[in-house]
Amino acid sequence: DSQYSPGYYWLGNNTLKVPLVLHKENRQRLVSQMLSKHKDQIKENSFILLEGGKSTMQYDTDHEPLFKQERYFFWTFGSDIPDCFGIVGLDEQATSILCIPKLPAEYATWMGEIRSKEYYKSIFLVDQVLYVDELLEYLKSKNASTIYTILGTNTDSGSTFVEPQYPGLRESFNVNNTLLFPEIAECRVIKSPKEVEVIRYCVDASVSAHKHVMRKIKVGMKEYQCESEFLHHVYNEWGCRNVGYTCICAANKNSAVLHYGHAGEPNSATVSENGFCLFDMGAEYHSYTADITCSFPSTGKFNPEQRVVYQAVLDASVAVMEAMRPGVSWVDMHKLAERCILVALTKAGILVGDIQDLIANKIGSVFFPHGLGHFLGLDTHDVGGYLGDCQPKVHSLRTTRTLKAGMVITSEPGCYFIKHLLTQALANPETAKFFNVAELEKYRNIGGVRIEDDILVTENGCENLSKNLPRTIDEIEAFMLK
Amino acid sequence: DSQYSPGYYWLGNNTLKVPLVLHKENRQRLVSQMLSKHKDQIKENSFILLEGGKSTMQYDTDHEPLFKQERYFFWTFGSDIPDCFGIVGLDEQATSILCIPKLPAEYATWMGEIRSKEYYKSIFLVDQVLYVDELLEYLKSKNASTIYTILGTNTDSGSTFVEPQYPGLRESFNVNNTLLFPEIAECRVIKSPKEVEVIRYCVDASVSAHKHVMRKIKVGMKEYQCESEFLHHVYNEWGCRNVGYTCICAANKNSAVLHYGHAGEPNSATVSENGFCLFDMGAEYHSYTADITCSFPSTGKFNPEQRVVYQAVLDASVAVMEAMRPGVSWVDMHKLAERCILVALTKAGILVGDIQDLIANKIGSVFFPHGLGHFLGLDTHDVGGYLGDCQPKVHSLRTTRTLKAGMVITSEPGCYFIKHLLTQALANPETAKFFNVAELEKYRNIGGVRIEDDILVTENGCENLSKNLPRTIDEIEAFMLK
Ligand SMILES: [Mn+2]
Ligand SMILES: [Mn+2]
Repeated sequence: DSQYSPGYYWLGNNTLKVPLVLHKENRQRLVSQMLSKHKDQIKENSFILLEGGKSTMQYDTDHEPLFKQERYFFWTFGSDIPDCFGIVGLDEQATSILCIPKLPAEYATWMGEIRSKEYYKSIFLVDQVLYVDELLEYLKSKNASTIYTILGTNTDSGSTFVEPQYPGLRESFNVNNTLLFPEIAECRVIKSPKEVEVIRYCVDASVSAHKHVMRKIKVGMKEYQCESEFLHHVYNEWGCRNVGYTCICAANKNSAVLHYGHAGEPNSATVSENGFCLFDMGAEYHSYTADITCSFPSTGKFNPEQRVVYQAVLDASVAVMEAMRPGVSWVDMHKLAERCILVALTKAGILVGDIQDLIANKIGSVFFPHGLGHFLGLDTHDVGGYLGDCQPKVHSLRTTRTLKAGMVITSEPGCYFIKHLLTQALANPETAKFFNVAELEKYRNIGGVRIEDDILVTENGCENLSKNLPRTIDEIEAFMLK
Repeated sequence: DSQYSPGYYWLGNNTLKVPLVLHKENRQRLVSQMLSKHKDQIKENSFILLEGGKSTMQYDTDHEPLFKQERYFFWTFGSDIPDCFGIVGLDEQATSILCIPKLPAEYATWMGEIRSKEYYKSIFLVDQVLYVDELLEYLKSKNASTIYTILGTNTDSGSTFVEPQYPGLRESFNVNNTLLFPEIAECRVIKSPKEVEVIRYCVDASVSAHKHVMRKIKVGMKEYQCESEFLHHVYNEWGCRNVGYTCICAANKNSAVLHYGHAGEPNSATVSENGFCLFDMGAEYHSYTADITCSFPSTGKFNPEQRVVYQAVLDASVAVMEAMRPGVSWVDMHKLAERCILVALTKAGILVGDIQDLIANKIGSVFFPHGLGHFLGLDTHDVGGYLGDCQPKVHSLRTTRTLKAGMVITSEPGCYFIKHLLTQALANPETAKFFNVAELEKYRNIGGVRIEDDILVTENGCENLSKNLPRTIDEIEAFMLK
């Protein structure tokens, strides 16, 4: 009754049984890409070395937050065990060695049965399991020439990956920390069919839970009660213990706060009669995650202003999905979405002027201040947004790449009435002239709309993995009819 | 609709409205204790300086785990804002200054409204609010003589508290890092009536949710579904977004794993027909937590062996609660619990021999390998277990102190059939002779029982805050009858 059986991760009942050969395939993909692209540079007996996440305690206390594995390590080995290292040989077989911590006898009293090396070998389909303290010896016995480690900056966080901290490593071997990072990040960008199945499961769970919340919601409920319904649904019925990111359950004008829901704004407001809801929540399973936003009126019935704003965003969403296919630039998709929104706001009389002028004066980012989307996978903001053929970083965009089959990316156009951005735009005569202030006033307290879907780029176009959500105004009103 | 209003933290509906004067009282208690105990040493214009928790991102990604405030800071200021500092003057008024981070304008787009200093002053009932970068200037303007900071080891984790990292502090002032720690930790040990009310609320929420789970449980359910029911109940109905520690939902023989439920053993087993359940779960509210364990058969009907073990632990629990009062040593309480369990196991024929011999040969810790309990408050394993009049550290005990009114402490006797501990005891002739192996065999796969209550020490005895749980065998069987 463990979550693991030889070659599988599974939480029983109707949850997804994940074949852990997924990670063996990842290792093979990585090694074959490294070998084919850097044949001349990589010497014989070279190895990739990854360090897994460490178990931690909060502040000076013994409170242990629920462990989340480091994602490069998880991608490569599929293992949730803290304090591991992993080795992958840069050879045809992509020889894999999982190094696990040697546990003290009292571990069995407090934490559970101490499993054997053979047990883990059978679970994770690696060639060998060692204890962490045998790592250096192993590499020496193999006459390791070069050890490849990750050093690189995550473009979403600006943080630099911490290289493996293994005592004696640098003294004993030639360590190369530049070659691996772009290759492993690029491998993570292109999802294998088995990875897509896990993401699809996360999306299915999240779609089901979003619909559950839309059925449950009532005026007078607290936002956090909606969060609680979502969390319970994905855990109880789908085995998803974690969400990929803190739930954003924004009702009323809170829906104009892009990352509402954190500890400082803890989904504590009451869902009001005219309150528009923007719920951005995604379930995690086997460390992969979904990232989905549903926007709808609390009553299930759109008022005229909500209708205008929602339709503007939906137009953008539909246009993007129709255009998405391999070879298309994500920057163009962002511009397309922005243009759709500007056109709709102009039609509604909130904005006045020529679309080109609106774009040239950056009016789009007053209403749509974030990027159209981001890669999705083990991280909510998955890696690789600025690799390969990307264009230079554009302020709000998390990627500027050209689409390829196998990418999974969110499409999340939004239109928000954000007080300080509007104040700023109206204070500047250059931008103020594009606004019809009287009309804008009607929308001031509406909050915002985001429609976020999880999209797989296919050979010929794309597949919206979250297509089972009610998305048009008619669909939402019909679905929420009590 | 914020969680804060002037002087209060409240999540609406039926949740507890916490008066934030609780923390003002904490500051006053701390200062008056410092001044009365160290009158001669503390110079005029001395200040306490605390650093709050920092907002963090996971690994190299931009994933932000839900912020949990550092507990000494929270105890003193009651504020959930990351990246703060706090100053308390060692003067009669316990002058308090909350230093908040100056936020960039785009904070309003992503995270929410940027509130004024005046706003926070009114919420947290401090004398002044400054920006963090005004801290040094403030202290200089007050001719600060000595700055008192925390340096000390947490006896549960073995970790040392990190002192405030404020640039220029040590260069500008005399810093004393020894005096404050024992005093603030001791203040946290004795709960004020207002603190007790918050803990009582956490306990009430947890009791209600444990009962909910006992009603919901069915053979065939997954352990994690029980966890999910608990989490949803405390969040949806009581506003408790967090639990104090990862839920331990151990069914069947997993109930012999003391800290089951972590990422490596993620409550993934199926509740079986003869499976005994040990569910250790506690809700958190306003950063205080409960810590409660219920043990019961999955069917609601005890079999003979379960009856024996449960009654052994209940005898210990009852004996301890009858004996608890100010002046009693916690070591004696632990010994009392251990003796009750040994007596019961001897009566049941699992153990043979004289009780004194069993104790002398440490047979108690084979079945009851952890301490009887720990202080409870902002931390699950709350601070101060080895301060003041404590006896030298005894291996498994988290405190060896003498009880005082105002302490809140868990009583959690347990009796487990832990494979490797039994094997060890039976392998040693010195200890093996006390076991009736044939009788023991019947219990081998039963798992374990823990009965954990949260107890307030009162002037004349104690109050079991979790007394509304069904605890006797009859009460449990009646409560779980479908
Ligand atoms: Mn997103
Ligand atoms: Mn406890």
